[in-house]
Amino acid sequence: METIQPTAAQGMQQMISQVLNSWEGQNKVVHTFFAKHADGISAQEVAPGRNRGIYLLGHLTATSDGLLPLLGFGERLFPALEDLFLKNPDRAFAEIPSFETLKQHWEKVNEVLKTNFATLTPEQWLERHTKVSEADFALDPSRNKLNVLLSRIIHQSYHAGQLAFLTPKNA
Amino acid sequence: METIQPTAAQGMQQMISQVLNSWEGQNKVVHTFFAKHADGISAQEVAPGRNRGIYLLGHLTATSDGLLPLLGFGERLFPALEDLFLKNPDRAFAEIPSFETLKQHWEKVNEVLKTNFATLTPEQWLERHTKVSEADFALDPSRNKLNVLLSRIIHQSYHAGQLAFLTPKNA
Repeated sequence: METIQPTAAQGMQQMISQVLNSWEGQNKVVHTFFAKHADGISAQEVAPGRNRGIYLLGHLTATSDGLLPLLGFGERLFPALEDLFLKNPDRAFAEIPSFETLKQHWEKVNEVLKTNFATLTPEQWLERHTKVSEADFALDPSRNKLNVLLSRIIHQSYHAGQLAFLTPKNA
Repeated sequence: METIQPTAAQGMQQMISQVLNSWEGQNKVVHTFFAKHADGISAQEVAPGRNRGIYLLGHLTATSDGLLPLLGFGERLFPALEDLFLKNPDRAFAEIPSFETLKQHWEKVNEVLKTNFATLTPEQWLERHTKVSEADFALDPSRNKLNVLLSRIIHQSYHAGQLAFLTPKNA
């Protein structure tokens, strides 16, 4: 059986699809974690003196929400989360949104991102993101939308590894 | 200033370069962590009842070493690590290699991988890895070398998030 070589345009599409699948996969890991665990678990610190599960959920939601302006899709859906979960550490505020509210925000952000991601061609993933000027981008073409997505996949996995500690060891 | 559109072939090259940069970046995170911390830190559990830092170093080294056969570059450099750090949990063996030895193995594996990665064209990254048959690959072309690398970047970041807990909180 002979393997059919894809054209370069198909190759680009294939690569982007795989990166998007990695993104979706990471979203699913976080979704599954918080769907499985009740409020009680999310209120615990992932390790002694470290962030609580609920803070990490807010942190990941606020980070993903920031992809909307960064990739040129529009404004943040939940701008209040930035102050609560990005600019300040856990426990900086006496009141934060409930676990249920944050889970809904998380799903909404991912849904809107997915819709917007689907509109980008592979070539557009290689275009600059909104925080880099045209001049700086000319100097470093890797400062593109794909790079932002790769770094967010890595960031999400980093925290998923920490969330895993809230699951009892022999569960 | 007009942006010059890359050709599809250049686009593929750009995408692969960025994924490889992500890989290198994650290797650097782990390298920097273990270069900075002495034996004492690596002997500690990353969270109560969880893996020790030294086990995670062995685990990441053994995982990366497995990329050599999986991507068709040859045999594992340190096959003994597979039993110690992949097939068995932490503390299954009374004796494991020293922290210094594992650090050397880690650097060596990454060096050999880097040399081999540099020989692959973007098209070759889209070819099947050695654990999938030609027939299965025809059914799912995403079972390629790029996908293996993406999943290993994610895996490494997952454990990097856990290693971070060995660093004192206000360091």
